[in-house]
Amino acid sequence: MVTKEILGRDLTSKDVILIAATWPTPEQWMDSIIKAHPGIKVHYYNLNLEAIEVFMKGGSHVPDELFKDVTIYVTMQYLPPPEVAPKLEICHILSAGINHIEESEIYKNTDITITTSNGVHGPQIAEWVMGHVLAQTHRFRTLDKWQKEHVWGNKLGSFAGNPVRDLVQQKIGIFSYGSIGRQIGRVAHALGMEVHAYTAHPKTTPESREDHGYIVPGTGDAKGEFPTRWYSGLGRGSFHEFLKVGFDVIVLSVPLTDETLHLVGKEEFEVIKEAGTSPFFVNISRGAVVVTEDLERALREEGVLRGAALDVVDPEPLPKEHTLWDAPNVYISPHISGAGSNYFERCLEIVAMNLNLRAEGKRMINVVDRRRGY
Amino acid sequence: MVTKEILGRDLTSKDVILIAATWPTPEQWMDSIIKAHPGIKVHYYNLNLEAIEVFMKGGSHVPDELFKDVTIYVTMQYLPPPEVAPKLEICHILSAGINHIEESEIYKNTDITITTSNGVHGPQIAEWVMGHVLAQTHRFRTLDKWQKEHVWGNKLGSFAGNPVRDLVQQKIGIFSYGSIGRQIGRVAHALGMEVHAYTAHPKTTPESREDHGYIVPGTGDAKGEFPTRWYSGLGRGSFHEFLKVGFDVIVLSVPLTDETLHLVGKEEFEVIKEAGTSPFFVNISRGAVVVTEDLERALREEGVLRGAALDVVDPEPLPKEHTLWDAPNVYISPHISGAGSNYFERCLEIVAMNLNLRAEGKRMINVVDRRRGY
Repeated sequence: MVTKEILGRDLTSKDVILIAATWPTPEQWMDSIIKAHPGIKVHYYNLNLEAIEVFMKGGSHVPDELFKDVTIYVTMQYLPPPEVAPKLEICHILSAGINHIEESEIYKNTDITITTSNGVHGPQIAEWVMGHVLAQTHRFRTLDKWQKEHVWGNKLGSFAGNPVRDLVQQKIGIFSYGSIGRQIGRVAHALGMEVHAYTAHPKTTPESREDHGYIVPGTGDAKGEFPTRWYSGLGRGSFHEFLKVGFDVIVLSVPLTDETLHLVGKEEFEVIKEAGTSPFFVNISRGAVVVTEDLERALREEGVLRGAALDVVDPEPLPKEHTLWDAPNVYISPHISGAGSNYFERCLEIVAMNLNLRAEGKRMINVVDRRRGY
Repeated sequence: MVTKEILGRDLTSKDVILIAATWPTPEQWMDSIIKAHPGIKVHYYNLNLEAIEVFMKGGSHVPDELFKDVTIYVTMQYLPPPEVAPKLEICHILSAGINHIEESEIYKNTDITITTSNGVHGPQIAEWVMGHVLAQTHRFRTLDKWQKEHVWGNKLGSFAGNPVRDLVQQKIGIFSYGSIGRQIGRVAHALGMEVHAYTAHPKTTPESREDHGYIVPGTGDAKGEFPTRWYSGLGRGSFHEFLKVGFDVIVLSVPLTDETLHLVGKEEFEVIKEAGTSPFFVNISRGAVVVTEDLERALREEGVLRGAALDVVDPEPLPKEHTLWDAPNVYISPHISGAGSNYFERCLEIVAMNLNLRAEGKRMINVVDRRRGY
């Protein structure tokens, strides 16, 4: 374990932070924290593969005694029994969602503040999405094929007979408009696209359209200014109304819940087909939001979808013999769109921001509302 | 030839437009023009392949008699002898540059106003550029390979050992900052990148940073607000200073001139190597701006470039046996980044805008300054 603190007079902070994670020790971040909050003590407990195996088997992989004085605990998933950490005030979870800790004692039976890393994925996943939209629009696979064959375009003179139509004024429908959807909206708007946002709950006022969570600086849509139209609803009827708009690109960036399980199936692809725009279909939420066989049928049928980009599928991993791998115009990647080298540093940025907000007596960001469940 | 006009009283326009082009007759546009300018007459002369062959051999492919009453002529490249078109006031050229008409009598020996289609390419080429930046960053070729092999990532767990770093805070250097560069700047800024603009002439005042040419609505950087820093200069010294910034992405979107011919060669790749950021190198200007063999050497050497996307090369077409096709991390396409289905309609939008400006007695856009040569 690596520990950093500054000892001396005029110490204002009595906090003790414990971080347990698999990344290399964040020396710079620790140095900046102890300087910003004199008196604070920061422990970094590096989880090795062995510790992770113990955890996978249901055991504790962080020794109980480490929690004795800890007031702020930063963790990937393990939460100790509350009695082991008597001074604990805040748990920061190094993931966007908290499904995996909902059964813990700390979540269920204490009022210890829980904060999440929601927002850190926005840029990376939005890049994966818009990269695929561009690759499909500009036929990068055809370009790759030509290059491999060392040919300067096809016999008809490259794309002359069937030119590319760029994305300007094309319509993108984004469901829902959280931190990932907002960065997709930002980039799509910069490309000249018309952005349509769908949310579970109505966003009818300017205030309701704001994003109060963590936003990677220079990205996102804090004010909700990029959509030209907003839609909402929890039922299939309102979702169908949204699909009837006739999009060129549809993006699913919605959490998997009881309402969104198998939300997109046979009926929805029929609505899409009737709308007549043959959209590009993107899923970076969870595979089970879509009925896989219905999606595959839509891809194989003429005129329903111009293609699909899927970072998530159902089941995962997709079996080697699955026919979806070879469906026309499909792009499949192994649930990697959010895995990036900026991940940990952005999570720690949230912790640092919250330390400052708390020191100033202000409301912290990314705080879980246990009644809402996120 | 298709002709449209509205006859009747209260006719305010005496103009006669002749458009000679290969695209299908732009019926809707012609209808909107004759409604907006009662009295105007619009002829559309559809050039077939035969006519184009005649032109390629140096002949006239538009009959002389068609020019008799024409005041505004819209053309791909053919310009008639001035005496054939005694009433001609404006020639609109259906391309961004005018190199190909500089030897014409109309250009050299008359004051007939010449307008260009500069600006129509911005969105499409910017999409090609940013699509490649994203495809390289997010390793789409690796994803394609996995998909073809039906494997769910590699044995180490997808990119786990070598995660993707998204583009936030990465530096993009754009030379120069015209209509294409500006749309690249807009999208890069939306992605959270730091935009650095290089121009031939200094842009030190807010006014000098504005774009007064045609801009596809909803795109571009009319005010020059996206770059965090501006650089300028015509010599190699100032260009080297720019390269020393240490970019993650370098884009060449500069015209081919005496100054830019072979601008990027051995020395420049050495400066890039010393800067130590191993940038992604993008060329969508002209192949001869770069010394091909020096670029290929840079790609084959460790640590100079992380890759390159080239829509233009020298020579074109690139011969089948050329070794550049297989250089590491190179993306080559057959000079197609600007060829899109929106092209003609955007060119005609410029003509429509200029008809309105002229009717209002205002200065038209995209007017060629013969002293400047563009």
